[in-house]
Amino acid sequence: MGDIVTAGVLVIGDEILSGRTKDKNIGFIAEYLTNIGIDLKEVRIVADNESDIVAALNALRARYTYVFTTGGIGPTHDDITADSIAKALDVSIDYHPEVVARFKERYQKPGELNEARLRMARLPRGSEPIQSATILAPGFRIGNVIVMAGVPSIMQAMMDIVAPSLQVGERMLSESVRGNCREGDIGTPLREIAEAHPDTTIGSYPFLDENGKPNTSLVVRSRDQAKLTAAMDAIRAMLTALKVPQ
Amino acid sequence: MGDIVTAGVLVIGDEILSGRTKDKNIGFIAEYLTNIGIDLKEVRIVADNESDIVAALNALRARYTYVFTTGGIGPTHDDITADSIAKALDVSIDYHPEVVARFKERYQKPGELNEARLRMARLPRGSEPIQSATILAPGFRIGNVIVMAGVPSIMQAMMDIVAPSLQVGERMLSESVRGNCREGDIGTPLREIAEAHPDTTIGSYPFLDENGKPNTSLVVRSRDQAKLTAAMDAIRAMLTALKVPQ
Repeated sequence: MGDIVTAGVLVIGDEILSGRTKDKNIGFIAEYLTNIGIDLKEVRIVADNESDIVAALNALRARYTYVFTTGGIGPTHDDITADSIAKALDVSIDYHPEVVARFKERYQKPGELNEARLRMARLPRGSEPIQSATILAPGFRIGNVIVMAGVPSIMQAMMDIVAPSLQVGERMLSESVRGNCREGDIGTPLREIAEAHPDTTIGSYPFLDENGKPNTSLVVRSRDQAKLTAAMDAIRAMLTALKVPQ
Repeated sequence: MGDIVTAGVLVIGDEILSGRTKDKNIGFIAEYLTNIGIDLKEVRIVADNESDIVAALNALRARYTYVFTTGGIGPTHDDITADSIAKALDVSIDYHPEVVARFKERYQKPGELNEARLRMARLPRGSEPIQSATILAPGFRIGNVIVMAGVPSIMQAMMDIVAPSLQVGERMLSESVRGNCREGDIGTPLREIAEAHPDTTIGSYPFLDENGKPNTSLVVRSRDQAKLTAAMDAIRAMLTALKVPQ
């Protein structure tokens, strides 16, 4: 079995905590990482507050292979991600020559390359910019920390740029079946199946079906296809024994 | 100025971290708490893993007035929230007589009130159930921890039940204006306004408008209406001086 590569996500932004903006990045990153073979283990959302960002970042970067952050890399006073990360990593922060050169090319009108925009070229020492022709404020990578935009379309473009450079592990495989039953009907036999298949993770997720009736999704996850199939077969046999329509 | 009441949210569930299920609860709770006068300060998402749940819960409950959890209170083996919370709070867990009585009324068919369903009646000692005629698996409140379902409609019903019993603070007020400008155009004057209005929080949020053009939302938040209005007036004056259409 290959190495397991893990990740944490740190979402930075008052607007998510106030409920004004509904986060769309966590679900995207979770699915993206699962697909390339990185296990997302933890997510934290913190305010635009330096000490909160520093504490969360240091907890996550010590614990997981990678930390992905979103938000706070724009040109305004509330964009404090780069400074906070420099502080967490105890490195200086300065204008990155490559980013400044791109900005000079991009902003040629008089006064356009102002102090606020130049702020976006300040990166913690040792950072590698994550940028492209369509990305204005660059993201960056420093050590195991990958810093991305909060705007979903830009964040997604940054994931595509950075992903090929990431170490990945053996992919977590998953299969699911619609139980057509209530969770409470299968709790006891499902536990027995979970205990009999220790190299799999079996999840049971209740949902309301098209008619508002309680139903259950059963999901088996494993890095080993044969073990996954064996557990899924056991679940299907259990559902058949319960005489629920498949 | 009234007391400030704070909260953390702990989302429990492998399915969120794998990306299979997209969380819809964080945004709802964030908006709900803001509206009733509780400041959401931090969110964590952890897997269905006892030690992860215990560590996150203990960090959050020590730090904030309330902690709201979602997920993991159903009848299957992967529902370990109640046990994990008992462990975090170092209390025993047992069948709650009131919940058991409700279940006996609810599940009268032979075999229906099975071991799996009865598991949902196990609450940490000292818990107060959060239930209603339409809620099957009860949520519960113990100390400053409020434990809710992961299914959004049920979680929302639980919030409505528990909300009237919560201590609330002075509401954070907010107003926003569409900047019709790029963030980089206003970064410098906006910082000056933010510095001149210390009892407000001013946020600048980039977005792509209906035509895909970069635009900016400017949001002022304060518990003091007069201070909020003063900051918002300064922002409108700045936008007018920049000659952007309002």
